[in-house]
Amino acid sequence: MKLYDCTPAPSPRRVRIFLAEKGITVPTVQVDLRADEQFSPAFRAVNPDCTVPVLALDDGTCIADVMAICVYFEALQPEPPLMGVGAQDRAIVTAWQRRVERDGFFAVAEAFRNSTPAFKGRALPGRDDYEQIPALVERGRARVGRFFAMLDVRLADHEFIAGRRYTIADITALVAVDFARWIKLALPEECGHLRRWHGAVSARPSAKA
Amino acid sequence: MKLYDCTPAPSPRRVRIFLAEKGITVPTVQVDLRADEQFSPAFRAVNPDCTVPVLALDDGTCIADVMAICVYFEALQPEPPLMGVGAQDRAIVTAWQRRVERDGFFAVAEAFRNSTPAFKGRALPGRDDYEQIPALVERGRARVGRFFAMLDVRLADHEFIAGRRYTIADITALVAVDFARWIKLALPEECGHLRRWHGAVSARPSAKA
Repeated sequence: MKLYDCTPAPSPRRVRIFLAEKGITVPTVQVDLRADEQFSPAFRAVNPDCTVPVLALDDGTCIADVMAICVYFEALQPEPPLMGVGAQDRAIVTAWQRRVERDGFFAVAEAFRNSTPAFKGRALPGRDDYEQIPALVERGRARVGRFFAMLDVRLADHEFIAGRRYTIADITALVAVDFARWIKLALPEECGHLRRWHGAVSARPSAKA
Repeated sequence: MKLYDCTPAPSPRRVRIFLAEKGITVPTVQVDLRADEQFSPAFRAVNPDCTVPVLALDDGTCIADVMAICVYFEALQPEPPLMGVGAQDRAIVTAWQRRVERDGFFAVAEAFRNSTPAFKGRALPGRDDYEQIPALVERGRARVGRFFAMLDVRLADHEFIAGRRYTIADITALVAVDFARWIKLALPEECGHLRRWHGAVSARPSAKA
């Protein structure tokens, strides 16, 4: 088993934090996205969609999606649970993870990829080329501002995003908040609950994974 | 328990098909999206994000996300399995569901919401207002064309999208393909494998749910 990774990139960081929380170590292969290594014939053979992370299993199966890789390890090693325990809790964690991913992570990505010169002509992840759309930069930034405000309300009376336990929703949110620095959006001073939470999850050893 | 639903809308249809495949019946409440009932004070009390579907549990918990509702019922009643069996299969189904949702369902929604006059000023689902961006109409349509071609390749040697078993990936794809009619994109004649699959999944009783 090996994990195709790229240390500076936000998506594979989600998997690395998940694995660190589980105490699981997987050998990694670095894919240099800054040198366009994801478009090399060798990497296309691993993942034709040209994205990282990818988990390559020993039977040759390649799992090329952050959440799918996490689902794999949650099933393989349920402890500590990061995706909820029991039907209702699993549903709540899923709903928060998806909300944070959509309103936070994808919103940052929208602003970042549509504004960064290196992504000209490649405004969406994947193998296909799409032109940047300038209107998405401001829309993405507006969405991130609302995301911060929404999370601050949620964290006013919850220790973690999905409730009393640290979960994959916190991992996605932490990576989204740190990714927002790439578009020069820091946590607002007035978001005290969000800042408290960010300090706490950033202090966990897994945050450095 | 009750399900807030809107019969003509694609998102709640994903849940209805899922429940029909499980043989589960849940009382439903219709929310009239065409009359903006999702913005009424009564519905905001159910889901402040103003979207359907929402599953309201007997303890008052509201689960306001398609996939989270499916996760709930999969845990409550595992048979027939729609989200994979075992770590590797669960991961494969998750990866395909997400790919189909991102490249198919969300791409259709992008083209639809940014072009339809009724969604002027509300180009994204949810409570917040965002202006339509005309460039997303053509981008969405281009993405859907690639989505059809990608699925046709996949289905050339697989009975269903995630492999040999009907899963939630087929449900998301079926709803995405039918949703594409709203932007006047039919399955291309040359996509014979995709058309074979679409005929088969549409013939299941659940497709009428």
